[in-house]
Amino acid sequence: MLILLKSDSSAAERDRVVRQIESAGLGCQTIVSGHRAAVLVLEAEGRLDPARLHALPAVEDIVHLSKPYRMVAREWRPEPTIVRLPGGLTIGGADILVIAGPCSVESEKQILSAARSVRRAGGAALRAGAFKPRTSPYAFQGLGTQGLELLSLAREETGLLIVTEAMDEAGLDEVAPVADIVQIGARNMQNFTLLKAAGRSGKPVLLKRGPAASLTDLLLSAEYVLTEGNPNVILCERGVRGFDGAARNLFDLNAIPAVKSLSHLPIIADPSHGTGRRAMVPPMARAALAAGADGLLIEVHPRPDEALSDGAQSLYPEQFELLMEELRGIAGAIGRRIAAPRAAAGVIA
Amino acid sequence: MLILLKSDSSAAERDRVVRQIESAGLGCQTIVSGHRAAVLVLEAEGRLDPARLHALPAVEDIVHLSKPYRMVAREWRPEPTIVRLPGGLTIGGADILVIAGPCSVESEKQILSAARSVRRAGGAALRAGAFKPRTSPYAFQGLGTQGLELLSLAREETGLLIVTEAMDEAGLDEVAPVADIVQIGARNMQNFTLLKAAGRSGKPVLLKRGPAASLTDLLLSAEYVLTEGNPNVILCERGVRGFDGAARNLFDLNAIPAVKSLSHLPIIADPSHGTGRRAMVPPMARAALAAGADGLLIEVHPRPDEALSDGAQSLYPEQFELLMEELRGIAGAIGRRIAAPRAAAGVIA
Amino acid sequence: MLILLKSDSSAAERDRVVRQIESAGLGCQTIVSGHRAAVLVLEAEGRLDPARLHALPAVEDIVHLSKPYRMVAREWRPEPTIVRLPGGLTIGGADILVIAGPCSVESEKQILSAARSVRRAGGAALRAGAFKPRTSPYAFQGLGTQGLELLSLAREETGLLIVTEAMDEAGLDEVAPVADIVQIGARNMQNFTLLKAAGRSGKPVLLKRGPAASLTDLLLSAEYVLTEGNPNVILCERGVRGFDGAARNLFDLNAIPAVKSLSHLPIIADPSHGTGRRAMVPPMARAALAAGADGLLIEVHPRPDEALSDGAQSLYPEQFELLMEELRGIAGAIGRRIAAPRAAAGVIA
Amino acid sequence: MLILLKSDSSAAERDRVVRQIESAGLGCQTIVSGHRAAVLVLEAEGRLDPARLHALPAVEDIVHLSKPYRMVAREWRPEPTIVRLPGGLTIGGADILVIAGPCSVESEKQILSAARSVRRAGGAALRAGAFKPRTSPYAFQGLGTQGLELLSLAREETGLLIVTEAMDEAGLDEVAPVADIVQIGARNMQNFTLLKAAGRSGKPVLLKRGPAASLTDLLLSAEYVLTEGNPNVILCERGVRGFDGAARNLFDLNAIPAVKSLSHLPIIADPSHGTGRRAMVPPMARAALAAGADGLLIEVHPRPDEALSDGAQSLYPEQFELLMEELRGIAGAIGRRIAAPRAAAGVIA
Repeated sequence: MLILLKSDSSAAERDRVVRQIESAGLGCQTIVSGHRAAVLVLEAEGRLDPARLHALPAVEDIVHLSKPYRMVAREWRPEPTIVRLPGGLTIGGADILVIAGPCSVESEKQILSAARSVRRAGGAALRAGAFKPRTSPYAFQGLGTQGLELLSLAREETGLLIVTEAMDEAGLDEVAPVADIVQIGARNMQNFTLLKAAGRSGKPVLLKRGPAASLTDLLLSAEYVLTEGNPNVILCERGVRGFDGAARNLFDLNAIPAVKSLSHLPIIADPSHGTGRRAMVPPMARAALAAGADGLLIEVHPRPDEALSDGAQSLYPEQFELLMEELRGIAGAIGRRIAAPRAAAGVIA
Repeated sequence: MLILLKSDSSAAERDRVVRQIESAGLGCQTIVSGHRAAVLVLEAEGRLDPARLHALPAVEDIVHLSKPYRMVAREWRPEPTIVRLPGGLTIGGADILVIAGPCSVESEKQILSAARSVRRAGGAALRAGAFKPRTSPYAFQGLGTQGLELLSLAREETGLLIVTEAMDEAGLDEVAPVADIVQIGARNMQNFTLLKAAGRSGKPVLLKRGPAASLTDLLLSAEYVLTEGNPNVILCERGVRGFDGAARNLFDLNAIPAVKSLSHLPIIADPSHGTGRRAMVPPMARAALAAGADGLLIEVHPRPDEALSDGAQSLYPEQFELLMEELRGIAGAIGRRIAAPRAAAGVIA
Repeated sequence: MLILLKSDSSAAERDRVVRQIESAGLGCQTIVSGHRAAVLVLEAEGRLDPARLHALPAVEDIVHLSKPYRMVAREWRPEPTIVRLPGGLTIGGADILVIAGPCSVESEKQILSAARSVRRAGGAALRAGAFKPRTSPYAFQGLGTQGLELLSLAREETGLLIVTEAMDEAGLDEVAPVADIVQIGARNMQNFTLLKAAGRSGKPVLLKRGPAASLTDLLLSAEYVLTEGNPNVILCERGVRGFDGAARNLFDLNAIPAVKSLSHLPIIADPSHGTGRRAMVPPMARAALAAGADGLLIEVHPRPDEALSDGAQSLYPEQFELLMEELRGIAGAIGRRIAAPRAAAGVIA
Repeated sequence: MLILLKSDSSAAERDRVVRQIESAGLGCQTIVSGHRAAVLVLEAEGRLDPARLHALPAVEDIVHLSKPYRMVAREWRPEPTIVRLPGGLTIGGADILVIAGPCSVESEKQILSAARSVRRAGGAALRAGAFKPRTSPYAFQGLGTQGLELLSLAREETGLLIVTEAMDEAGLDEVAPVADIVQIGARNMQNFTLLKAAGRSGKPVLLKRGPAASLTDLLLSAEYVLTEGNPNVILCERGVRGFDGAARNLFDLNAIPAVKSLSHLPIIADPSHGTGRRAMVPPMARAALAAGADGLLIEVHPRPDEALSDGAQSLYPEQFELLMEELRGIAGAIGRRIAAPRAAAGVIA
């Protein structure tokens, strides 16, 4: 930690900075560059609360020489985390995990039809919401428990892994036994109560980046899960708040290589929410893969114009099949491959 | 609702739009302007899910002629909501409610000292957190239940109203009996489980705007509370995510007059989080008041450089006293006044 | 154009809206949906100034049914513009144009070495600045006229096309005779004097998106060039202002498919400015290509650590060669190909 | 300057950093904090190009201990700059300069009527554009030279100072002899050719912040003017690009106290562009004043609904008069006062 001092601070004010560091049992050194001065904390800065230093009159700014997160940092664990999933599937290695499905579970017919389309095109996991966080109280809020039962049914028939969202602790208790991967949505990225509960559940967690979250914020939220003893976190870029109406969000693919350099955790991308427009999903799915994403989350609906949510950004099953072809080509060009779905029999057996 | 059609859509595709509207039992009219066409839905659009229309191939965009929220809309209730608080205090009328205090309850000595400073300077409510949502799992997370007890003690001594945050449903059950106003923090603005629980609690709710929330998002979150039967919602602008390092957030004071025109709910401003820098708090508190805020939320700490959180943006008690003087001057210049705190005896009696 | 009326506007106020439209010689129709009303302008809205309508007391908002630009709109010209360049090269068709080189021309040795590296790896155009717009007056401002001479020399030796920036009208008079493509930088995207002059020059123009420009703003700036009689405009996404420090800009690849649907003009991407970090350039160059970009602008420097500008985001020549290999693979996977550079002899002959 | 080293960099790579600093004739010191290392440059960092250091493989990040600007920095000149204007008016001291008028000069009748309204309400300067930078080539582009003549006429009659925009060097040659203050618009904030020319002109310059400009960017642009020998720069906050449709821009009033702490230059605010909506202009004008602005730029039009540009954000003359009353009250409450206009006779004499 380097504490930049105000150029007009007095000697007494600067002394208070040094004393505060020393009172925490740490050493420090005052350094001077031109007419500016700074205090360098010599040892592990974790023992020092920057908020307290920031409040001192002499302090202009604080530069952290270490990252504020630890367990998720590549600095502390250089090799990538490979999250192991049922059926021998993994995420974080050479294989690309394609997760697809409708925004919400709507009916048995709809979810089975969607699951078959995903399976046929070569997707490995089915994603659909039973509990739906919706901006408006008047929007469809999901089928709840019944939706979870339908997801189990779809898994039995197709062998696809199930990815579905938990909105709160009570919901997590219902979702965790059914889901192969529990999703924590963008709006809940800093719902720390839910993050800790997901950590305790031990289930693989798909953690979506919030629309105003810096990568540091995202990684600190993942750290909440890891500190509860659960290392199986998959990050997800899904677009941040932008200013251009041509897309629903500003899809920040820079986050993919940036997170790869900062953390050992896998990261996937969601071009459906990242764009919000069906016609933009295939090019941006290709782009995310080319940028190095470990997987993709794509909305597909058997009949998008009858979808109860997110129809405008859901692909038709035929579009998804074409896209999967293209994705296989791009994966090959960068030395990766799309993970094949496990056999359906594997589930029942 | 006006549905803009793609200029290259076919007659059959356009027909599907009309049929979908009619199948919901609504009338519509196709209108043409130059070479563009659109379909106008003639009746209450609430019965029609825009997501389903958006998914149709002919649809380019949808323009809502009504707001997506109802109970919070000024359109539906022109007169301002005045939230009634204990001791005859109100918010939403001519009086300005000044809420002040440290970020967190840290100890009996600290909170009592803070409360006395706030009372002395003329603040009417004490705000401090017992349960603290923190970006990092390594930061101070609050005293919890013990913090609530200390807040009760501070109220008994000073008569100040208590404003404190609930992070989840379980916490709300603890907080609601103690708090005069329950705060829902920016990170939980779209924690719909918590919003509904706060609605059921019946307590006045202070709802802070999330860092990427549009005003429509904020008002829809308030709508969640109102639909549960609780009309006592106070909105709060506290800064959105910005790109300039000179301040912690981009303090969006435009939100004050904009919300006033869209909604009948009171709105206050939090210049401490809106700026993140102590020296910027007094000018921006003055600005928020001049922009029409119904109240202010200001961090004050007896010894900011010993604060366990947010010390850099907390005022010294003397600064707060000076600021209150200035605020009284500005309130007078725009025909309002700072609400006086209730007598301490009122509580004990 | 649809003019939404305020729900509390009077009949007289609404009449003024109708009269203003009729006084411009246009027809209109008042339409009603639920409790909201609107006025629809029936003919070409180009003859009506929205600013004047917006100022009327009854007007709440205006929805444009047509785009504000015309000549650049795909709506008016469905087939893509293919810009023809010297040596039979094109941009906007199946071929991908890779433009590469150092940020600035620094010396004969440097620019020739850079040009040879670009040529060897298979790039088709050399980009380097002679006139440099720099945020700080103390930063290197370019070699000026001498830089242009060195670019001519590099073209003679390698056959590469030359792309270089003009900062103002006077500079354009110097740059246009030398450049094969004239660049207008992000900071000058709304320098309308320069845009008009570039339109009059008739040279192909590479127009970079400004850091806060919506796609509508970008297309309107292109429209300035086209209205002067120059149809040869190439758009460029180079990142918008973001809030995360992990990259220099927020690289908005959504702009690629979005612009393709709105306009017939070609669009390329600049992953060097889009990321600002060398290690992020190769993955994001791949991503831009996969998203459908018609070309790439990549900073390469023979010795990045001696660069006078942008060294941190410049690739080493060996990295650029590896990247070109990957780009050829991705182009193949999506049915496109990297344009081969023309023969050097073609220039001299 | 502090150069943070990558934790996985080799000793040889770190050596290159030290050698590059020493080869510039500067001393440095390697410092270690926990497991992180950094190199501190001991002397004036102005002699070292950070771009070159940034490009070295060992360098993770660079922290500047000094600001990149000098002449505009409060650090170098603690007392505020007071710009002296004709008629004994000033900006930057206790007086608040209110500049008002229509967006564009449209006709003799319009500008004289506007000027009289401004004068009557107590404004000290008239602002209107003769040369108008417009996003669309189809929008009204101003009366040009004739507009300047009408502004002179308005000054003769009312004594108001004239503020008007120059879009390019040629325009500056026309504008400078007429204007009392030359405006450089937001879109031209980084038009360095224009900034240098404005510096050479010696006229007071009103420099508006660009919609994506950090405060550092703004101050560096001002530095361009000062380095040409012109110290008379007035900065202006007018809103940055936001994501909420309720206002045209995100009006960043935090910029007012932040600039005051970073620079000695005066700063004013433009609530008309900062909000884009007439009803929001008065509250936000009050807010800007309360935040510490040295002046205000307010659009007023004799008949806003006939304005050729910006009608929706222009006040009616009666509204402006009421607002001036409120502003006088707020100025008084914070120990400042609204500057009175000079006598008209002063001009003619």
